[in-house]
Order: sequence, then C-alpha cells, then structure tokens
Amino acid sequence: MTKGLIVLGTVGLDTIRVPSGVRRDILGGSAAHCAMSASLFTTVHLAAVVGNDFPGVYIRFLKRRGVNLTSLQVTPGCTFRWEGEYKPHDLNTACTLNTQLGVIDGCIPKLSPQQRAIRHVLLANYDPDVQAEVLGQMEKPTLVGLDTMNLWIDIKQASLLRLIKKAHILFMNDAEARALSGEKNLMVAAEHLTRLGPRIVIVKKGEHGSLLLFQNDFFVLPAFPVRRVLDPTGAGDTFAGGVMGYLNCCRKVTPRNLQRALAYGTLCASVNVEGFGMDRSSRVTRTAIEQRLRRFGSMCRL
Amino acid sequence: MTKGLIVLGTVGLDTIRVPSGVRRDILGGSAAHCAMSASLFTTVHLAAVVGNDFPGVYIRFLKRRGVNLTSLQVTPGCTFRWEGEYKPHDLNTACTLNTQLGVIDGCIPKLSPQQRAIRHVLLANYDPDVQAEVLGQMEKPTLVGLDTMNLWIDIKQASLLRLIKKAHILFMNDAEARALSGEKNLMVAAEHLTRLGPRIVIVKKGEHGSLLLFQNDFFVLPAFPVRRVLDPTGAGDTFAGGVMGYLNCCRKVTPRNLQRALAYGTLCASVNVEGFGMDRSSRVTRTAIEQRLRRFGSMCRL
Repeated sequence: MTKGLIVLGTVGLDTIRVPSGVRRDILGGSAAHCAMSASLFTTVHLAAVVGNDFPGVYIRFLKRRGVNLTSLQVTPGCTFRWEGEYKPHDLNTACTLNTQLGVIDGCIPKLSPQQRAIRHVLLANYDPDVQAEVLGQMEKPTLVGLDTMNLWIDIKQASLLRLIKKAHILFMNDAEARALSGEKNLMVAAEHLTRLGPRIVIVKKGEHGSLLLFQNDFFVLPAFPVRRVLDPTGAGDTFAGGVMGYLNCCRKVTPRNLQRALAYGTLCASVNVEGFGMDRSSRVTRTAIEQRLRRFGSMCRL
Repeated sequence: MTKGLIVLGTVGLDTIRVPSGVRRDILGGSAAHCAMSASLFTTVHLAAVVGNDFPGVYIRFLKRRGVNLTSLQVTPGCTFRWEGEYKPHDLNTACTLNTQLGVIDGCIPKLSPQQRAIRHVLLANYDPDVQAEVLGQMEKPTLVGLDTMNLWIDIKQASLLRLIKKAHILFMNDAEARALSGEKNLMVAAEHLTRLGPRIVIVKKGEHGSLLLFQNDFFVLPAFPVRRVLDPTGAGDTFAGGVMGYLNCCRKVTPRNLQRALAYGTLCASVNVEGFGMDRSSRVTRTAIEQRLRRFGSMCRL
C-alpha cells in the first residue's frame, strides 16, 4: 500500500469564542482539519493521539468521512484541548486563551507497517520533534508537506530547521515566514526559506490569499471572497490539506499542478471559515468544491 | 473632440521620506500620478492648478509624456505641497507630515470648450466640491470615475455622497470603503457602496490586491508581487489611472473589459511603487506593461 496521504498532527477538542458566540469541545486540531479537506481528494491516514475521553461520536464522524483511523491512538488520559478567541476587528488572528496538552505530551503516534510504505505525508502543526519522529517511521517519503506555527519557531527552532531540510513543501503564514527568514518582503522571505531545504514554499496570507515559490517561479492567488467569516480556526490547516490532498492525486508535482493545488487549498479554506469548527468543511462535497472553483475562475481572470 | 480622458486632481510637489531615504519637491499629486498610468493607454487631459513656482522641467516632462496641458492652470502663488513618511513596518500607510494647499485653495480648474465634450473623466482625489464643479462643466459625461480619501469622508461627507451618486466607478481603499459603508466585510461594504449610486465599486487593498463589484458579480485580483517597494506614494492613483485609461480605449464597459482594466490598474501600481515618485511609472512603456501582464497571467492561474 503506497497510495493515500498520511496526516500527522493534533486531534483535539476546541472551545472557540467568536463575536457571534461560543462553541465548546468541538472536534478540532491540526490533523483533523487537514484531514477534512484532504479527504475530498484522497484517502487520509490520520496519525494522532487522543485520550480515552475522546467522544465516540467524533470517531464515527471521521470514519464516515472515509478517514483511515488505524493510527489514531486512544490512550488513557485527557484529549488535547485548545481554547481560542477571535476579536471582531481582527478575525485573522486567534488569541489563545488556554491549551491543555493532555495525552499528546510525550506520546508519539505510530504508523502501522502498511502505512509506513505510503509515499506522501502532511506533517500538520505539531511539535517538530514528534513530526521528525513520525517522518522517520516512513520508508520512502517522496512528498513531505510541513506546516508549523510561531510557537515552534520561538522555542524549538533548531529542531524545526532540521526538519525543514527534509520537507519538500513548507507551509507558513506570512508572520511565520517573516519571523523565520528575518525578511519583511514575502517574496524575499520565500526565497530565503527555500534555501533552508524545501523545493516549494507556500506563504498563507489568510484573507489576503497566498504566494507559492517553486524553482524561481512565483504563483499568487487571492483568497476566495467570503461574505461572512464565522470561525477562522483551521483555515490554514484545511488550506494545507487541500493542497496536499490534491497533489496526492497528481502523477507529478508540476507548476500547473501546484497552481491547481493552491486553488483547491484556497477553496477548502474558504469553505471552512464559513462555519464553526468543521461544520462546513465536513459537509462540503467535491462537486461543491468544483462549482466553487468555476466561480473562482470567473472572478479571478486577467 | 470626445476622445481621451479628463483627469482632474492635484498636481503638486511631494517630499517623501521612506526607510531608505528622502526626496524633496518631486512631482506628485493625485492627477499627476493618474495621468502617468492613464497616458499609457489614451490621451490624458489634465485639469489642475499649480502656482507660478511650479518647475518648468515638470511641465516639459508632462508634455513629453503626451499629456494635454490646456487645462493646467498656472496661478500666482505657491504650488500644492505634501510631505509624507512611510515607516519600515507598514509601507501601506502614509503618515502625512505637512500639507500646504497653496493655490489649490479656492481655485477651480476650468476645462476648455473642446474638453467639455470629452465623455470620460477620472475625478482623482480632491475636494469633492471641486470635483463636482468640474464634473458640472462637462457636457455629457458617460463614464465618471471617482477617487477620494479618508479626509473627505470625515469632513465633507455630504458633498462626497452627492458626488458619488453621479459616479459610475467608485474607487476606494479598504479602510475608506469600511469607513463610508460602516461594514467590515469588504464584499458587504462594496454592495453597500453600489447602493449609493455607482454601477461599479473597486476596493483597492494595496499590497493585498483589489476587489471589483459590478452588477452582483465580484472580481478579485492579488497584487502583482514586487520584490522591493521603494515608495508607495501614488499607488492608488496609478491604479485608478490604469483602470480608467484602459476603459477609455474599450468600446463598452463589459465584465471582461473591467477584469482586464483591473489587471492593468494592478500592474501600473506595481510599477509605480518600485521607484520614488514617478521615477518608474514615467519610464514604463506599454510594451513593458504587456510583458508584465503575461508574467502576471502565468503567476495567477487557477
């Protein structure tokens, strides 16, 4: 078995406060969000650890979505929990109110022998040492996508830099790209980041779209405009999941396929922010994404 | 004579402070910047007032660019002067250090009898009462583009709203669109603004691209990525000039022509910010813009 996409990251319970209300203990985590969008395109093998308090309803929900849960490890203890708030004036930025690591502290997901032969992996936001450990379990990864967050740039930069060397596609938001490269201009920052190892750097700019650098060529896309952003949590994850999920179906990583992948990532993120947690992205179909792609195509033409 | 584009606005002398240096008393003003880009596409008739201290070298410069100066009125007194600064962390926002109105205080540009018959006009940023007065001189304007700034929203909103009713294309930056509409989401803000009169609303987002609303259809473009933004002064003006200049060559205002106009506006602005004042935009050729359009097309594909 070499088909499909390994998605390593957190699966947890989010409490989210937005201007219009609060939702408590809803399914969240980097890997869960990535899996939602990637599973529109391919079979996702989730590699994550949850506590034995993790609701069975979410296990069944992920199964119904077709996600392979062989490597979703259930361990005695508490599931990872995150609580965040978005202020009305800046829906781009989450203020973390509380984080409880629970069982993910010290527990490393283990791929099954069959899953180790899979070629594509998305290392969604997680401790870079754990990301490296799971990547090390893979026999011959040919496409490694890596996402991260400002926390790891701040407290585990050496580990992160070692891991970046092994990544083919590096996902960073604009602030992270600037922080890690020390460059303000995003083109220059992306060039700097490719010199750290990855062939492809994708800078996510939230509501302002994205920038991709591949072999000296830059690609740019605006965000798909959304009339009402309800909850931005997981936008970056569903973006990365859409990109990696689409590429998993492509025979080769060509400039054209990367551009198309960028568009799918953009659209998956645009769907995700329209609902709380995974309300919208868990319900969207590939057909609906294709419809949105056609609308995007008529909106964004030169 | 009904061909060409009237461009009304300020022509002045700018002192610009950017992180990399200072330039004093260089050619600036909303109409001058608009004229630079619009003249790539059509004959621009400048309607503006300058003092008798206005350097002859700039008069000759504008003439060489093919700008019709019949309605550039030279009046005893001082030319409009603006001094602004851009901080390293936010090149999108100009901090005004000093403004001297000089002769534009109380002086209203007058179109020649022949120019009154011209059909297209770009009312570049100016006192909305002066914009209305010059629009009133035109016999039968069929395409009125209107640009403005936060100052007029704050201190002359009633005049501005009366004028907006008569505009076909309203240009606003994101902050202005939000301020005038009271809506945070830019799609909702643009819809609100079309209800004030204009058929077309274009929201300029600086380095984050633009959004256009026409008959319930939204168009979006990212900015053309620029490796080094030297001086953002006039970016919005060259954008509007590019849009109106291109539309002036089109037989009809169709969705397709608007999309193309948006792309040209984007490219004209991208050239302008690469140099101080008009250093770059005065030298760029239509051929170079077409080359950049092809590059943009290969960068931004779905």
